[in-house]
Amino acid sequence: MEAYLDNSATTRCEKEVAELVTKLMLEDYGNPSSMHLKGVEAEKYIKEAKTRIAKTLKAKEKEIIFTSGGTESDNMALIGVAMANKRAGKHIITTEIEHAAIHSTAAYLEEMGFEITKIPVDNNGKIKREALEQALREDTILVSIMHVNNEVGAVEPVEEIAKLIKEKSPKAYFHVDAIQSYGKFKIVPKRMGIDLLSVSGHKIHGPKGIGFLYVNEKVKMNPIIFGGGQQSGMRSGTENVPGIAGLGLACEMAYESFDEKVERLYQLKEEFCEGLLKLEDVKINGIFDKTSAPQIVSASFKGIRSEVLLHTLEDRGIYISAGSACSSNKPAPSKTLLAMKVPKEELEATIRFSFSTHTTKGELDDTLEVLEEVLPKLRKYTRH
Amino acid sequence: MEAYLDNSATTRCEKEVAELVTKLMLEDYGNPSSMHLKGVEAEKYIKEAKTRIAKTLKAKEKEIIFTSGGTESDNMALIGVAMANKRAGKHIITTEIEHAAIHSTAAYLEEMGFEITKIPVDNNGKIKREALEQALREDTILVSIMHVNNEVGAVEPVEEIAKLIKEKSPKAYFHVDAIQSYGKFKIVPKRMGIDLLSVSGHKIHGPKGIGFLYVNEKVKMNPIIFGGGQQSGMRSGTENVPGIAGLGLACEMAYESFDEKVERLYQLKEEFCEGLLKLEDVKINGIFDKTSAPQIVSASFKGIRSEVLLHTLEDRGIYISAGSACSSNKPAPSKTLLAMKVPKEELEATIRFSFSTHTTKGELDDTLEVLEEVLPKLRKYTRH
Repeated sequence: MEAYLDNSATTRCEKEVAELVTKLMLEDYGNPSSMHLKGVEAEKYIKEAKTRIAKTLKAKEKEIIFTSGGTESDNMALIGVAMANKRAGKHIITTEIEHAAIHSTAAYLEEMGFEITKIPVDNNGKIKREALEQALREDTILVSIMHVNNEVGAVEPVEEIAKLIKEKSPKAYFHVDAIQSYGKFKIVPKRMGIDLLSVSGHKIHGPKGIGFLYVNEKVKMNPIIFGGGQQSGMRSGTENVPGIAGLGLACEMAYESFDEKVERLYQLKEEFCEGLLKLEDVKINGIFDKTSAPQIVSASFKGIRSEVLLHTLEDRGIYISAGSACSSNKPAPSKTLLAMKVPKEELEATIRFSFSTHTTKGELDDTLEVLEEVLPKLRKYTRH
Repeated sequence: MEAYLDNSATTRCEKEVAELVTKLMLEDYGNPSSMHLKGVEAEKYIKEAKTRIAKTLKAKEKEIIFTSGGTESDNMALIGVAMANKRAGKHIITTEIEHAAIHSTAAYLEEMGFEITKIPVDNNGKIKREALEQALREDTILVSIMHVNNEVGAVEPVEEIAKLIKEKSPKAYFHVDAIQSYGKFKIVPKRMGIDLLSVSGHKIHGPKGIGFLYVNEKVKMNPIIFGGGQQSGMRSGTENVPGIAGLGLACEMAYESFDEKVERLYQLKEEFCEGLLKLEDVKINGIFDKTSAPQIVSASFKGIRSEVLLHTLEDRGIYISAGSACSSNKPAPSKTLLAMKVPKEELEATIRFSFSTHTTKGELDDTLEVLEEVLPKLRKYTRH
């Protein structure tokens, strides 16, 4: 038995995607900057990927910039916008529950003289609207808020937030870290008022080491990596053509039969949560109805340290995460759970289950069965 | 017939490398930051790649930082060292013939208040030692000089340069862009006095979108991409495990049967150059004996615009580059050839042939034959 329930950390690459990547590594291996046929062919793959991705967002092809992944996309959005607009203001707003790619980049910008305001969240991980309203100023140049929180699956109301920004700080750009939401939510940046959007390939069954940043064509932004001027000068370096083509295909596939796939995920989540709540002393963090993300369940198992449960499940072929495993593996209290005011004892007993469209009901039923079996044993052990 | 002679732009991925990448995309797809078995397995691949690479450089594993490619490695070396050492000085030295990844990053640092000195080169593309000697100052914090020039194959005397730096500016770090030399030269950074070294995967039959920066453990350097703290905080973002493993294998393979492979390349180059010089009005730029790089030949074909020759050869299945194709495909006069004082008319008639260990004598003989046939026709056409 194997149940891979750590899909918010990373997913298995789709077979068709891996095949395309392999073909481009071995056959169509040209450098898009080369002027001959092999370069032109490589360029075509990039164009095709852009078309595929732009279509999922109802965006323009030129609004897609390929990066080495979600972290670089987040860095580019924050640093690139900050540097290009510092004359208009030096105030940036983000939240207390962002991924480290945003928090650490914001800390860097703070060192560089920018002022960062972090909006708090309620017990369910939803940002406090009044706090954002008060934080928005005339010199605010950028607001960066994640769409789906990676640890608990809270969904932030990005459309509403966008309206508030346009109202109170019309000059500020709105960046959305969509690394956990792209492929699970329909996102139309222009309609929703989103100016920049970060996406990672390996979270949606695409290759690792590739991602993109959607940038509305009107956004004033600087590059953060300099060189040969590829991607209209916005991201230098020989394009990772196999990765880009693979990402394009993965994005297209993520939105195929979208409604059914998402509906199925919500059903799996509902049944799984019902099953969890039937177990003794289990609490689910945040909202877990259809206003939450369909693929993330955060649960606290009273009296059991998350690492202990993680390794117990691992022994049974069940792979989950203790808190957020997107960051490197140093143990630190989860900022999201702290911001949600989850009590310390629950915080240390929290596990994240994360699904993908490949997740089966069988995997989840098996997991519930194993939990039912091991929880009393682990608690007994702890009480000694 | 096909002759791919644009290997300095990019190479075909080795079959074994592509197979390893595919296996990791489909089977061992874990996130190294995950604490469970799949994460531990992924971490092992990274460790193995580091071991393989460190061995080729007689370096320590912890001195290898994986990046998204050569351009990011160059950016990281320059910006990372500049930012971490700006209190010691703001003077940086580089040369007139660097790749755009260095030139553009240096221009960015200039905007940020650093002072950049560019050392000129002689007619063969070798940097002028006296100029470097004069440029080295007490407040020089970094010297960045490429090992092998990507356009003409000139080899810079990095060991000698390192000695000069340690003598005149003992506090300055020495960065070497080895993107065209790694795999063609034996490089032992510690013995040669190199503190930082940039390498790209796709130039050595490895995957695109991956590279590394060797950083001597004593170097003080800041990260340039911020986030989850992966790679000891030096390069955040989920590691591109398939790319990293593929790069590790490609590096190991590049140094297998090294002497024979390089000797064979020099022989191919010698014969090819002899063949070129037998043709009418052909000039080879720079030195092309064994003190030059074994894989690059830059030649000017009097009276024929390089684009015209490029497309004529392309029609015959021969892929070469007009100037340097590492940069994006906007036509601009080659900075290297300008620095070498190549006359304008020759400059516009310059072609780069670049070999790899996969290049065969047959490909080169065919190329010479086609050149012999087409050159008189093209010149006749031009004269009309």
